Amino acid sequence: MPFTIGLDYGTNSARALVVDTRNGRELGTAVVDYPSGHQGILLNPSDHHLARQSPADYVHALEKATIEAIAEAKQADPSFSPDQVVGIGMDGTGSSPIPVDADNAPLAFQDAFKDNLAAQCWLWKDHTSIPEAAAITAKAAELRPQYLAKIGGTYSSEWFWAKIWHCLKVDPAVFDAAHSWVELSDFIPAVLAGVSDPKQIVRGVCMAGHKALYAEDWDGLPDKEFLSALDPKLADLRDRLYDRAHDASVSAGKLCDEWAAKLGLPAGIPIAIGEMDVHYGAIGCGVDEGTLVKVIGTSTCDCAVVSADKTVADIPGICGIVKGAILPGYFGVEAGQSAVGDIFKWYVEGVLGDVELHAKLTEEADHLKPGQSGLLALDWNNGNRTILVDQLLTGMMLGQTLYTTQAEIYRALIEATAFGARAIIDRIKEYGVPVERIVCSGGIAEKNPVLMQIYADVTGCEMRVSRSSQSCALGSAVGASVVAGVHADFKSAQDAMTGLKDVSYQPIPENQQVYETLYQLYRELHDAFGGVSPSADLGHIMKDLLALKATQSA
Amino acid sequence: MPFTIGLDYGTNSARALVVDTRNGRELGTAVVDYPSGHQGILLNPSDHHLARQSPADYVHALEKATIEAIAEAKQADPSFSPDQVVGIGMDGTGSSPIPVDADNAPLAFQDAFKDNLAAQCWLWKDHTSIPEAAAITAKAAELRPQYLAKIGGTYSSEWFWAKIWHCLKVDPAVFDAAHSWVELSDFIPAVLAGVSDPKQIVRGVCMAGHKALYAEDWDGLPDKEFLSALDPKLADLRDRLYDRAHDASVSAGKLCDEWAAKLGLPAGIPIAIGEMDVHYGAIGCGVDEGTLVKVIGTSTCDCAVVSADKTVADIPGICGIVKGAILPGYFGVEAGQSAVGDIFKWYVEGVLGDVELHAKLTEEADHLKPGQSGLLALDWNNGNRTILVDQLLTGMMLGQTLYTTQAEIYRALIEATAFGARAIIDRIKEYGVPVERIVCSGGIAEKNPVLMQIYADVTGCEMRVSRSSQSCALGSAVGASVVAGVHADFKSAQDAMTGLKDVSYQPIPENQQVYETLYQLYRELHDAFGGVSPSADLGHIMKDLLALKATQSA
Repeated sequence: MPFTIGLDYGTNSARALVVDTRNGRELGTAVVDYPSGHQGILLNPSDHHLARQSPADYVHALEKATIEAIAEAKQADPSFSPDQVVGIGMDGTGSSPIPVDADNAPLAFQDAFKDNLAAQCWLWKDHTSIPEAAAITAKAAELRPQYLAKIGGTYSSEWFWAKIWHCLKVDPAVFDAAHSWVELSDFIPAVLAGVSDPKQIVRGVCMAGHKALYAEDWDGLPDKEFLSALDPKLADLRDRLYDRAHDASVSAGKLCDEWAAKLGLPAGIPIAIGEMDVHYGAIGCGVDEGTLVKVIGTSTCDCAVVSADKTVADIPGICGIVKGAILPGYFGVEAGQSAVGDIFKWYVEGVLGDVELHAKLTEEADHLKPGQSGLLALDWNNGNRTILVDQLLTGMMLGQTLYTTQAEIYRALIEATAFGARAIIDRIKEYGVPVERIVCSGGIAEKNPVLMQIYADVTGCEMRVSRSSQSCALGSAVGASVVAGVHADFKSAQDAMTGLKDVSYQPIPENQQVYETLYQLYRELHDAFGGVSPSADLGHIMKDLLALKATQSA
Repeated sequence: MPFTIGLDYGTNSARALVVDTRNGRELGTAVVDYPSGHQGILLNPSDHHLARQSPADYVHALEKATIEAIAEAKQADPSFSPDQVVGIGMDGTGSSPIPVDADNAPLAFQDAFKDNLAAQCWLWKDHTSIPEAAAITAKAAELRPQYLAKIGGTYSSEWFWAKIWHCLKVDPAVFDAAHSWVELSDFIPAVLAGVSDPKQIVRGVCMAGHKALYAEDWDGLPDKEFLSALDPKLADLRDRLYDRAHDASVSAGKLCDEWAAKLGLPAGIPIAIGEMDVHYGAIGCGVDEGTLVKVIGTSTCDCAVVSADKTVADIPGICGIVKGAILPGYFGVEAGQSAVGDIFKWYVEGVLGDVELHAKLTEEADHLKPGQSGLLALDWNNGNRTILVDQLLTGMMLGQTLYTTQAEIYRALIEATAFGARAIIDRIKEYGVPVERIVCSGGIAEKNPVLMQIYADVTGCEMRVSRSSQSCALGSAVGASVVAGVHADFKSAQDAMTGLKDVSYQPIPENQQVYETLYQLYRELHDAFGGVSPSADLGHIMKDLLALKATQSA
């Protein structure tokens, strides 16, 4: 009776999941909130771009969540024993690089740096590195256009090199003290494996891929000449990083004695390679060719795969097309929206100031027809990750009258995220990535049928929901089952361990038609404010919305 | 000791004011809410354009408010006697036409029509007549371009002919039953004077002016050939309306016995001609050449005067330049914003759902610097009256992040109305109407120093507040004092009866500078969404706002 454990490091908490590898049954789970900062995030009140996390929180959560999940599994099934755990896998947010010393210990563990924000983990949604990202894009356009082609045309402030370079600029003492930098999703497997030399960490190609500009085409990380053109110190750092990154067919190591003792697990069991949360989430949702997986949380990440036998062109605005990034043997295609749940949360909790309103507004929004509110919004409160790849964008709402209601605004924000989702789907389909249905994961997908129906109507795709409400952790457990040899490959592991809920959201033709009109208006605003359309004729937008409102209110 | 009574018919209530003509002392006042509908307005839930009012409410308020104001005056000063009242004046919203029968009784008084929305007063902010307004504009462009030149280029759905034509289209039975149509501000003086034939009503040029396309240049109302081109029934109606309209040097009649008895006032005292509320409000604020009066309420009306000796060009987008409309001997220039207080009310009460928040948000907004929020809004939740003259426009808010607060949005809405105010000032100054200072009236101006300072900073003008908090009613009382012969002319009546509060808001140079930048961005959005700029390059807007936000947050 082999079990595996999947660990999932989210934005505000970490989760451990004990899974039966024969059928995906989830025996025990535990969530540990990161204790530091605001909901686990270290902020700077005078700079809303800054978002860091304490590496100590990660280690704390690793121990606590795993032990509690095992305890719950024992309680759920007295016949379960931790001895039956044959592998462990982990996923995390990214790019979330951590500066470490020569012993692979985070600098933040040192007294000198423990309160220094630059010495913490640079959380994925930290956007302080916007100037560096722009400079990397500009320099690559000049010297290495092939880099840009691979990443959709624009290097992001959310990624590895921009963050590290920004650190070098704003806090050179931290940069100089850092022997190396490790992604969160490489760091936790390395901790479990007891790796005490950053160079020995088995790094995942998933995070290396576009985020660190790693590609086999150019022999790994960006060459030193290019890095020197940014800053010679970055070229020096390259030597202390890594030469090769791997897909999930490779193990990240074996559980070391120290951590085996801490967790009460057998020493020596294999550790799956770390992947980005949503990549293992896609696996946990049963991703395959033709199925787009959307992990809908604070932000959204979209994952698709295309067989590595095929040729996939570089897609403008789509940053992540990396072989092996999700499933071994497939190109992984990754896209996303910088804020989805966060926008609803901002509106309900930040603006309306009442967390209880989510349910009420969802119900009221359900009674509105598409177009009835006359509102149209852009979903850029946290910038636009795909397809504009521009963090210097903000939200927008248009069409307010003196009678616009709370619920109308709520629905318009949901619709805005649906339009953003559609912009991504249209783009990848245009470049040959098949999308026949969408499988979603995350609390919003499970709890908000109004949103799911709107997404079906806007995208024109059937929307399904992953059976597991912990798809990322489940995907990590799937990965562990493969490196443990329980399943021969990911396909058979997914068939055994993953599934869908019964509910299916089908597009409703009359809604689709209205949303087609609204989406075209959305694209006009999108292109105008996104800088794609430098001579926009927008005088008709409010009038078209009012006309639609009149029709849909009748 | 001569006193006059001023009556002011606002959007939700009517007010009576007993004034000492020697010094403007306000001896007694009373406000009566219109009892019908939602806050006095008859609505149609499925058409937010519709806003009507019950004529019976007007008559009810006339009696109740006057009697109560007299009672209060007696209480305030036992030596006061109603016998000392020498004149009565009245102002009202407009264009608010009422269909009446051949005896000058509103159709709504008849059982057959009492519940018919089309038979009520068509309140100024009723926008159901958008198609008719557009058709009048188009037909005038073709046949009578001089009409359009006089009204800023566009006939409004808020005005007389559009409303009546819309009635003819949607409810011909009401149109056919109506012997004539009377503006609210002509109706109440006619009631007081006991006029029982609509043709005998002494109409004010203030309301006739641009709203009914009345001008001496073309011998009064639009000619029958033009009206026939709209609908022959409108040409027939012209015969039953009026030939001449008058300025405030003419009296609307004398108080009839019936109403003298009802109100306890001397029969035969003169009644001032009715003017639009804000026109008498401008007089009550001491309007003269160089002083722009802003009556800030649910909407805003801007009034300026230019000596009739001068030549004032037609001003594009400024609908009301009518000789005698405000002060006899001056061109009255009227402009306005379709919603100001209504926008704050909508946001605080309609969206946030808590009327108590006004004070808290005002205080929080006061702690923000210009540009600090990164937000920029358009003030079009109720359309744009000046300078675009387009009701088919809606609100807009741009620049939201995940950290945007309630108070930031509140301030952005105040700023949006200030930018709208500046657009009007810039336009009239450009065409030679001097604006050296601004005198405001209305509760918002008195109670919201944050708004007043923002307006000073955005417009670059000193902002003052009228001494009276009932400027419109006071202006009516001033008008009454002139027709009663207490004062020789309006100038001396204003000198005696009106004044300013001590407080003065001066522009703060560093704020002015930031608002100059923001106003230019506002104008780009204004022109793009207003249809003035058909090839807008808006890709920089969000970036500029973020840059300003960064600077102002530092």
